[in-house]
Amino acid sequence: MTEKLWGGRFSERTDRIAEAFTASIDVDRRLYAYDIEGSIAHCKTLAKAGVITQQEADTLIQGLIRIKKDIEYRKFELDESLEDIHMNIEARLIHDLGKVAQKLHTARSRNDQIVLDVRMFLRDESLAIIQDLLRLRKTVVNLAEANIDAFLPGYTHLQRAQPVLLSHHLMAYYEMFTRDFERFQETLRRIDVMPLGSAALAGTTYPIDRHYTATLLHFPKIAPNSIDAVSDRDFILEFLSDAAIAMVHLSRMSEELVLWSSSEFHFIEIPDAFATGSSIMPQKKNPDVPELTRGKTGIVFGNLMAMLTLMKGLPLSYNRDMQEDKVLLFQGTDTLKACLGVFVAMLPKIKFNADVMGRATASGFLNATDLADYLVAKGVVFRDAHQCVGEAVKYALSQGKELQELSLDELKSFSSSIEKDIYAILETEAMINRRTSFGGTAKRCVLSAIETAKTVLEKEDKDGVAGMRKVQKGDPLP
Amino acid sequence: MTEKLWGGRFSERTDRIAEAFTASIDVDRRLYAYDIEGSIAHCKTLAKAGVITQQEADTLIQGLIRIKKDIEYRKFELDESLEDIHMNIEARLIHDLGKVAQKLHTARSRNDQIVLDVRMFLRDESLAIIQDLLRLRKTVVNLAEANIDAFLPGYTHLQRAQPVLLSHHLMAYYEMFTRDFERFQETLRRIDVMPLGSAALAGTTYPIDRHYTATLLHFPKIAPNSIDAVSDRDFILEFLSDAAIAMVHLSRMSEELVLWSSSEFHFIEIPDAFATGSSIMPQKKNPDVPELTRGKTGIVFGNLMAMLTLMKGLPLSYNRDMQEDKVLLFQGTDTLKACLGVFVAMLPKIKFNADVMGRATASGFLNATDLADYLVAKGVVFRDAHQCVGEAVKYALSQGKELQELSLDELKSFSSSIEKDIYAILETEAMINRRTSFGGTAKRCVLSAIETAKTVLEKEDKDGVAGMRKVQKGDPLP
Amino acid sequence: MTEKLWGGRFSERTDRIAEAFTASIDVDRRLYAYDIEGSIAHCKTLAKAGVITQQEADTLIQGLIRIKKDIEYRKFELDESLEDIHMNIEARLIHDLGKVAQKLHTARSRNDQIVLDVRMFLRDESLAIIQDLLRLRKTVVNLAEANIDAFLPGYTHLQRAQPVLLSHHLMAYYEMFTRDFERFQETLRRIDVMPLGSAALAGTTYPIDRHYTATLLHFPKIAPNSIDAVSDRDFILEFLSDAAIAMVHLSRMSEELVLWSSSEFHFIEIPDAFATGSSIMPQKKNPDVPELTRGKTGIVFGNLMAMLTLMKGLPLSYNRDMQEDKVLLFQGTDTLKACLGVFVAMLPKIKFNADVMGRATASGFLNATDLADYLVAKGVVFRDAHQCVGEAVKYALSQGKELQELSLDELKSFSSSIEKDIYAILETEAMINRRTSFGGTAKRCVLSAIETAKTVLEKEDKDGVAGMRKVQKGDPLP
Amino acid sequence: MTEKLWGGRFSERTDRIAEAFTASIDVDRRLYAYDIEGSIAHCKTLAKAGVITQQEADTLIQGLIRIKKDIEYRKFELDESLEDIHMNIEARLIHDLGKVAQKLHTARSRNDQIVLDVRMFLRDESLAIIQDLLRLRKTVVNLAEANIDAFLPGYTHLQRAQPVLLSHHLMAYYEMFTRDFERFQETLRRIDVMPLGSAALAGTTYPIDRHYTATLLHFPKIAPNSIDAVSDRDFILEFLSDAAIAMVHLSRMSEELVLWSSSEFHFIEIPDAFATGSSIMPQKKNPDVPELTRGKTGIVFGNLMAMLTLMKGLPLSYNRDMQEDKVLLFQGTDTLKACLGVFVAMLPKIKFNADVMGRATASGFLNATDLADYLVAKGVVFRDAHQCVGEAVKYALSQGKELQELSLDELKSFSSSIEKDIYAILETEAMINRRTSFGGTAKRCVLSAIETAKTVLEKEDKDGVAGMRKVQKGDPLP
Repeated sequence: MTEKLWGGRFSERTDRIAEAFTASIDVDRRLYAYDIEGSIAHCKTLAKAGVITQQEADTLIQGLIRIKKDIEYRKFELDESLEDIHMNIEARLIHDLGKVAQKLHTARSRNDQIVLDVRMFLRDESLAIIQDLLRLRKTVVNLAEANIDAFLPGYTHLQRAQPVLLSHHLMAYYEMFTRDFERFQETLRRIDVMPLGSAALAGTTYPIDRHYTATLLHFPKIAPNSIDAVSDRDFILEFLSDAAIAMVHLSRMSEELVLWSSSEFHFIEIPDAFATGSSIMPQKKNPDVPELTRGKTGIVFGNLMAMLTLMKGLPLSYNRDMQEDKVLLFQGTDTLKACLGVFVAMLPKIKFNADVMGRATASGFLNATDLADYLVAKGVVFRDAHQCVGEAVKYALSQGKELQELSLDELKSFSSSIEKDIYAILETEAMINRRTSFGGTAKRCVLSAIETAKTVLEKEDKDGVAGMRKVQKGDPLP
Repeated sequence: MTEKLWGGRFSERTDRIAEAFTASIDVDRRLYAYDIEGSIAHCKTLAKAGVITQQEADTLIQGLIRIKKDIEYRKFELDESLEDIHMNIEARLIHDLGKVAQKLHTARSRNDQIVLDVRMFLRDESLAIIQDLLRLRKTVVNLAEANIDAFLPGYTHLQRAQPVLLSHHLMAYYEMFTRDFERFQETLRRIDVMPLGSAALAGTTYPIDRHYTATLLHFPKIAPNSIDAVSDRDFILEFLSDAAIAMVHLSRMSEELVLWSSSEFHFIEIPDAFATGSSIMPQKKNPDVPELTRGKTGIVFGNLMAMLTLMKGLPLSYNRDMQEDKVLLFQGTDTLKACLGVFVAMLPKIKFNADVMGRATASGFLNATDLADYLVAKGVVFRDAHQCVGEAVKYALSQGKELQELSLDELKSFSSSIEKDIYAILETEAMINRRTSFGGTAKRCVLSAIETAKTVLEKEDKDGVAGMRKVQKGDPLP
Repeated sequence: MTEKLWGGRFSERTDRIAEAFTASIDVDRRLYAYDIEGSIAHCKTLAKAGVITQQEADTLIQGLIRIKKDIEYRKFELDESLEDIHMNIEARLIHDLGKVAQKLHTARSRNDQIVLDVRMFLRDESLAIIQDLLRLRKTVVNLAEANIDAFLPGYTHLQRAQPVLLSHHLMAYYEMFTRDFERFQETLRRIDVMPLGSAALAGTTYPIDRHYTATLLHFPKIAPNSIDAVSDRDFILEFLSDAAIAMVHLSRMSEELVLWSSSEFHFIEIPDAFATGSSIMPQKKNPDVPELTRGKTGIVFGNLMAMLTLMKGLPLSYNRDMQEDKVLLFQGTDTLKACLGVFVAMLPKIKFNADVMGRATASGFLNATDLADYLVAKGVVFRDAHQCVGEAVKYALSQGKELQELSLDELKSFSSSIEKDIYAILETEAMINRRTSFGGTAKRCVLSAIETAKTVLEKEDKDGVAGMRKVQKGDPLP
Repeated sequence: MTEKLWGGRFSERTDRIAEAFTASIDVDRRLYAYDIEGSIAHCKTLAKAGVITQQEADTLIQGLIRIKKDIEYRKFELDESLEDIHMNIEARLIHDLGKVAQKLHTARSRNDQIVLDVRMFLRDESLAIIQDLLRLRKTVVNLAEANIDAFLPGYTHLQRAQPVLLSHHLMAYYEMFTRDFERFQETLRRIDVMPLGSAALAGTTYPIDRHYTATLLHFPKIAPNSIDAVSDRDFILEFLSDAAIAMVHLSRMSEELVLWSSSEFHFIEIPDAFATGSSIMPQKKNPDVPELTRGKTGIVFGNLMAMLTLMKGLPLSYNRDMQEDKVLLFQGTDTLKACLGVFVAMLPKIKFNADVMGRATASGFLNATDLADYLVAKGVVFRDAHQCVGEAVKYALSQGKELQELSLDELKSFSSSIEKDIYAILETEAMINRRTSFGGTAKRCVLSAIETAKTVLEKEDKDGVAGMRKVQKGDPLP
């Protein structure tokens, strides 16, 4: 039996089943580097406060650094009976350094220690995800720019509606990912808060300087209430919400990639390098990446729902239920990062079949709205125009024709206002380029949107992580 | 059969079952005022663009205002066969005004119209919720101030851990609600975006000025991509996430109120006015309000989950699935608002049994940490101190005593460093007031936290809605 | 102020906000008929036990029947301050009958009363849903039979895979709905349990005969533990799970209907009577019914999630949180029933474009597996055959041809085993009819599956509700 | 580059990021034994059908058995570039045996292979869970029997309501776990269905005997539709629903264990062996096992929600999204099994403080209902009795007394019907033993319930797995 570091009041050793059940080391081992970095800052803080001597601090820090290396070189066997990463490291430090190491846990508790580790982890992950989103937005804008002349049917209800530029369609995703980018930055502000010094729940009696610890660990803000500091997991809930929403966007793009690579649409070709085949059907090339992404969306939703359920109705302050936050958070971050990464890699390799897309705009009466607008311009009220074009469509359907294939006489039979100039009106590119309302699909609008996006991205890129963190360094939260 | 306004191309009337199934009028009728306000702004925009004359605009606006009054005075029977609130109003306008009313729907679609209505609705709801949160935060701070001398056991794992001030405990909730307050404001920025002018999905061919419409409707920002404008429901997802997190907080407070009003805790008395009795057991007084709030938490989680599921994997742009967003959003906003409202009303009426709380700190070894800290101060390393106090606890348990009830000799048998001054150390208020680390439970720390909170609240109160909206008027989003 | 029936120990009247917050009458009024039916059975039980006289029972029963009529004829104004449907009815009964009505609540509590009402409601709803599923299964089988000669590409990954009979595809849904049918019946056994007589939680001191009550209310089983009886909502959780799974099936069929009615697939025509148009685009005919069904899937998932969340971690026995079960249950049952109903109405009206479906099997290399199987029959090992056909596909793609369009020489260049008989092998119908493994798509397999289904359905139809309830009358549960 | 077994038609190798993203080997490696067992049955089926010779089958089977051993002895390095467990095993078999191994995949696809593996896995897991539930039910009944004389307050709204036997309270959990037991058995019937022979989706052209395969693998039923066979994941959804409901029960028991081990309740002592301490507070003994179980409830809810989301709206038949089912299923089964296991181990070790529980029934007016019932017996109508007792309670509260502590005169002041015999009526055990309605808390009712449960359990125990499987061998599903 490994001696528990909290075993004083206990008469019985932990049951094996219970030990395995309660141990979190398989999951939280991943936090080791943050745990050690936090402990080093804690040592310095204790020394500054005179709780330990500078020499003791140095000894402890050297010991911690050695342990970090041992873990990295896999020379450190983690022990389940020591429950978690904190206890594993502390026990090892005691083994290595003796007495002095027993001072490390002065003025802190695992309650503030674990939330520190998780916040440091999630800060790094958030920054990585923000970078990934920046890359993804650039990728999308580049695609939009490179395909500025392609057009396709815009859909509502998956029915062809009106022709749009492919670039315009892609820029809709740019907007979505930009909102994600923004949300993760805002959430980062609430992640980036230093909890250490809250101890078990009530603060500590040792005269430590929490601002010093915060500075050492690059936190712009300190948790202002010790009970809240160890009870709060909002930052995980909020992060997982952001992640779930980002996955909604990726799932929508995935759905479109799956549709577009079907034989029926044939709007794109997914490169061989991003598809797989069938074990039985030699002809198959499957859009596995978007399919899996769509499937993984469920995983992240599940993580969010699990985390909400877990926190619901917990009395203050720390409860052991909260240990399960890590498995959810790790699954959530890993899933989102993997999806973002593979999309950044795949999107530029997709081949758009601009000719197929273009041809698709010629059937399905995508110019019906424009015929109505034409009539309005001629003085017909909109609802009458709509009704009359509806009848023209019904007639054309019965003839197996499109509106532009009807003769002028046929068209005139629905409204005497229709004249020869209508045929030019009904051409796809003319229709697209007439939609010049701000945010519309006209080429000049889309080019302008691309230009704006590029300026924004360039700035964000130049500012880099510093710029992102700056968000957090603004006015202190109320 | 009521004539459908889109019926031109259809040969068959809508099946009755399908009509009832697809109609949303029972739900979206609630949006009538926003729908009419949006239509009025649209009239003005059309007139400014010369699409209709000023006189036509005036006629339409008068007609719309009349309809609004009729709805308010219940003189307007809504018709399910007209599907939704938009069509009901438009059909009535045509009935009232004839030809001119058929011009109203020029340059817009129900796709941009509905998202406008929902955004206006949710902007108002968000502002109301932000106000409610402001009130709730004030209520909590007032409670904290009024009860500054009360203390109770702080809990971890629902086990008594260390004594804390009741005010400190309450201020933990202040922190939670402040984060909620902040989140709803940030989300409001992304709600407060004007979609009109996106038409069906591609923008419009009419020369309308979307900035003018935005000004009329007090929107600081315009949706920059027409496809995204009609496809996006991020703002609902994000709002429901915020709501779910706020409900987590309310559910935690509810759990504590339920616990605290039990015979076993007896820390509080819920006023008769906020409790109900039993139909069979004459003695019962039940904490229904916190119980129901805890239960309603599930409702909001369910709304979020439903909305995420609904949006997952939808191809662009508008799909009819999205009609269901309203029932979820209405349920979510109503639930949250009801809970916030009843908490603001109930909290000040709760009677805290300070004596019971206080007595509870005397048993359960809440001073064990302080005994350990005392030993550390005497030169014992922390882990040894922890171990030795653990054994003292084990011994005291076997004697049916608390630590402070052990004789000095008994205490000394665990560590010779213990001396007579220990008894003062182990007193509750002394323990509380020694925890002076920033954010700790010492009275002076808590008073300072209350002071800070009051300053913040005063400012927020003074700034009012303007201040809240200012958040949205900062730098334009990229 | 309406006098509360439990007001004895209370000194203060209920706060208005709290009253509105805790009242459930807006939701549970829907249960009035069950509540009254349960009260009538309770009267009879009390009379049989000698707790009240037969004459008193008769008076009460007449009074209850009158109230039921008044509610039906809308002559009974429900009062929010009376909280719920039980109290509204009891207060009215006391108003009508005086003293004797005050005896009605003897030997019961709202805790067992409400769960009785909900179980009776859900029993009826389950039977209705089971009937709807029976109708839906018949509808699907009829469609399969009527379209036995149509074929289409079977898809994996939304890529054309192998040709299948449309009937075979439809019969896959028959299997899904049959599992739903079975699940709802099994759940019904656990719904169909009589809780009355459990009183608040501990049973009652009155000598009532619960088996008699069960017989009066047609329950085959009595809740065997009074605490469980008032605490348990498994039957709702289980029902909502069944509903969520059924919605998964409807959402998959909906997705296919949406895809198939797109211009790109054009496999079906949704009848005008089940589609709607666009307010702006005159040509649009949208598959609203399947879209809404897909969207409503989220609603039911949300109801399940909410109900799970609500129940999680509640201590025994009844807690007020559970009041929220009804809004979730009503939403869940209404949604599922509406979707089943509209599908039963819509499916027979869908027009399958068999020629378009058929033509689609001719391109996309759906015969690649069969070429591989052909090679295996000629002695090539499967993996080699697969590899060689894969190369043939790559070649054909580069030539813009299908496999059956390659010349024999071209084909032979990939394997000398290929001979002239290959062309017959590669024909769609031949391919379909060679898949004769049990459960395969060969016409004779599908006809046999249809035959089996019809026999089963006929029997189930004949047995009717009796047969469904028989399931519940089998061996008593352990 | 490892050669893909499906690489014939591909020109490009798989991108590394995509390879890592799509590989499932890290997850599905766990299925290796089922995969090999399924392949062995497939070999025998192919041989019986004459597709391969008996000698070839023997060679393949020997090779497969060897691979199984190698995996068990960790002599087989799995390769991510081979995607999944199926391809890893097949590639190794080809490496070991050459040409003949390339015949193994004849007449099957990964689509039917994977669902076979998962069904075999889940069948075993279900049986294990059913056994765990049997053990848990026995544990609960044993506890109930051993503590038949203990009583405690029964709670509603966490307010003391009426006294109940501890055994009665425990038997409520017996009922819950019995329903779980039943549900998992019913679900097992739908898990226990053999999909092999469905091939990719359409069945196979080879003359295989699927019934033979089913017999070899002990399946009582064959999937009757090949498309459904590869598309369906109902059995996972249903299993996860059952698991979520079982977790609701465990979470409720956990909540009670947490409450009961608090200082305030002090109803139980969790043994040291199932608790852990604090790193900072030497006195702490935390109920970690129930807390973690309560937390893990969220995990399983999340798994269910993720799986529902994943399946929603997928067109038939197999889609790659479904690969993610395994991570959810594994997490769900592991979590539930761990919780059941630790509860079976912990429950018998819990020490009930019968005296504390008993004392708690003496305060809180738990005898108020009985006083009302007493008055009813004396001829007072129930509502009057209830009102009058309510007032007595209010008076007693003001005196700081319980009802039984009021003098006869005091009592009489509320109702002249009260006489001296009332004091015996108000004693806890008398109250308990008067509740003799079927399912009530009277000792003889509870003893009878225990007896019934023991008989049922004995039978189930004797029947064992055979009995459980018998459920599946009843009438074939419709």
